[in-house]
Amino acid sequence: MDKLQLLESLNIKNNKKIIFLVIDGLGGITHPEYKMTELEAAHTVNLDNLVKNSLSGLIIPVGYGITPGSGPSHLALFGYDPFNYEIGRGILEALGLGIEIGKYDLCARANFATIDYKTNIVIDRRASRPQTEKTVELCKFLQENINEIDDIKVTIKPGRGHRFVVVFTGENLSEKITDNDPQKDGYSPKIIKANSSEGEKTSKIVNKFLNRVTELIKEKTPMNYILIRGFSKYPDIPSMNKVYGLNSACIAVYPMYKGLAKLVGMKILDVPGEKISDEITTLKKEYNNYDFFYVHIKETDTFGEDGNFLAKVNKLNEIDGFIPEILELNPDVLVITGDHATPSVLKGHSWHFVPVMIYTKYALYPNISNRFTERECLKGYLGILPAKEIMSIALANTFKLSKFGA
Amino acid sequence: MDKLQLLESLNIKNNKKIIFLVIDGLGGITHPEYKMTELEAAHTVNLDNLVKNSLSGLIIPVGYGITPGSGPSHLALFGYDPFNYEIGRGILEALGLGIEIGKYDLCARANFATIDYKTNIVIDRRASRPQTEKTVELCKFLQENINEIDDIKVTIKPGRGHRFVVVFTGENLSEKITDNDPQKDGYSPKIIKANSSEGEKTSKIVNKFLNRVTELIKEKTPMNYILIRGFSKYPDIPSMNKVYGLNSACIAVYPMYKGLAKLVGMKILDVPGEKISDEITTLKKEYNNYDFFYVHIKETDTFGEDGNFLAKVNKLNEIDGFIPEILELNPDVLVITGDHATPSVLKGHSWHFVPVMIYTKYALYPNISNRFTERECLKGYLGILPAKEIMSIALANTFKLSKFGA
Repeated sequence: MDKLQLLESLNIKNNKKIIFLVIDGLGGITHPEYKMTELEAAHTVNLDNLVKNSLSGLIIPVGYGITPGSGPSHLALFGYDPFNYEIGRGILEALGLGIEIGKYDLCARANFATIDYKTNIVIDRRASRPQTEKTVELCKFLQENINEIDDIKVTIKPGRGHRFVVVFTGENLSEKITDNDPQKDGYSPKIIKANSSEGEKTSKIVNKFLNRVTELIKEKTPMNYILIRGFSKYPDIPSMNKVYGLNSACIAVYPMYKGLAKLVGMKILDVPGEKISDEITTLKKEYNNYDFFYVHIKETDTFGEDGNFLAKVNKLNEIDGFIPEILELNPDVLVITGDHATPSVLKGHSWHFVPVMIYTKYALYPNISNRFTERECLKGYLGILPAKEIMSIALANTFKLSKFGA
Repeated sequence: MDKLQLLESLNIKNNKKIIFLVIDGLGGITHPEYKMTELEAAHTVNLDNLVKNSLSGLIIPVGYGITPGSGPSHLALFGYDPFNYEIGRGILEALGLGIEIGKYDLCARANFATIDYKTNIVIDRRASRPQTEKTVELCKFLQENINEIDDIKVTIKPGRGHRFVVVFTGENLSEKITDNDPQKDGYSPKIIKANSSEGEKTSKIVNKFLNRVTELIKEKTPMNYILIRGFSKYPDIPSMNKVYGLNSACIAVYPMYKGLAKLVGMKILDVPGEKISDEITTLKKEYNNYDFFYVHIKETDTFGEDGNFLAKVNKLNEIDGFIPEILELNPDVLVITGDHATPSVLKGHSWHFVPVMIYTKYALYPNISNRFTERECLKGYLGILPAKEIMSIALANTFKLSKFGA
């Protein structure tokens, strides 16, 4: 029996409420200039008070030494083993662009490229890195001319720079096909073929699509060809409602996170703007309608990726200011953590552990952690634990799990 | 996907360098007389300074409560799950004797014994514990008279006391045979048989070999018979070069450790003598030629097994003196740990956790551990973690792993 099956079998429905506040890229390491982590440098009076009345610890996002993308790290926070449930690149790109994905969709990442049609050699896999506007324009042109291939609907949505997404919608589509990306300039594009009999229909559709695209753009050098890869279908992930018996909702601003939440069956709530205060407004408004809220804050990750230590610190200060409002709702459990660390010194996601606190009445008080920092959380009751275990602790503390065995 | 497959898929090659300094039998427990562990009693100024600038913790060698041999404990340090990759006893004995093993070799542990040929009863499974010289002499005599059985080459190498190793080399040999050891004095030797059809040829060869040996030594009481067991072939372990993309090298003095390193594909470097200083000389000389160095120091384990607390302490002091020379090489990551604990109070390997430090630029500084001891490492950032996870943290800290998922 795996953990999800166990949790499903122990499932108790009640009205107790769980809030997961996910501060993207929360964790850090010591910055050589400031001699502190971002959390250590921040003035987080409210978080520091709260951690004294919480369980605290550090989470391993997906595995020791493994730097996760947002997909696996969020699945883990939602209690899913990220190695059991993989989300394909095409799906993630589509989610990131805010495209609604369903069971009959096959998503692919695509991009414009430059080919020499005489020699059939890809000269520039990124088509001289066009401005986004050019890609928007050319995607619109393609979409106007290609709506379907046989019985399959085709949707083309521009991304940033040379990138776009193609969604094929219909019956009997399969991920079991190869792509046409030679991976390096100076090589011929590969032939798209079925990997197994399941992929026969799809490879025919995609090849027909490619031929149509080529006819339409062959004169539009440098954007005279497309590379397409990462074919992926809607992943078969059991919903949080099914496995945990939760009535769950997502409060997020960025499309990628809404998309991830939708994959696990959350209701995506409207947020009136893009600020944290807008997200809190939604939380208050919808508080009575759900028993699980995933609230996502993005900018800490963005500033970490920019290597902007002080901006990340200031964003933490700002987040701290919203804690009293959240506590006024009187949630039974409030989890505050990140999906992964984004140390500004590394300018990117990292493998490092991430502070976590689980505010609950049922704990060992007072907590040994005096602040909500990496160093202080290391002393905490939860120790260092896999991110995927946080959900079951939240469920336990809201009495949503019955006894295992007699 | 298992961890090794994951790491292989994330593999990035670069020139950053990792040194693994493995101090055999490093960990200890409190000695009732000295009221300290060996590390606590040692004066390790350099290690203590280094740990303040490192990640620290305690490793679980292979599993809670499991006392490992050198084979599994080293595999774990090299990042392999020791329960997935077993190294047979015959192979380990052969490695320990410095025998070169290849894909066509089947190794077995053997020993001289005393049998009563009239009753076919093994009287003494250890042949009255002969001196090593007698075993050397008798092995030489056997080797001179038995070079091959049918198409299979036979190699006989003496070990210590009554023990020796037999290597059968040729096509279609198999481990799937039983042994002849009755396990207790006063019983008849067992008949060697195939466990499955794969073992048919091998059981015939080994039985013919036993008959030849018996003819040759039946008058040489008490060494008038042999017991043979632990048949094992070269294990199918993917190399470190393949799974981690490393160009790895081993600096060790004892054959067993060189053999283990060879099993995972390391280049075995020449060491000009048997002292630690000789190993450091090799490390310096070869430093530019590899990106991963496994440096093994044996004597801490030997003194632990002797129950010699003070000698183990002095050896730790000596090792401490070499740390500055290693740091002068400016490795990107320096891991210092042991393969298992050998507490002198237990006079043998034990299941206890072993201190570990991972020196890297990318950490939470200053470290909470003030010394490189069991007690101080318990406070460290890494917590208590499986030994097999250390490798991925070392790879992460040298940017040899790409992001998992998007």
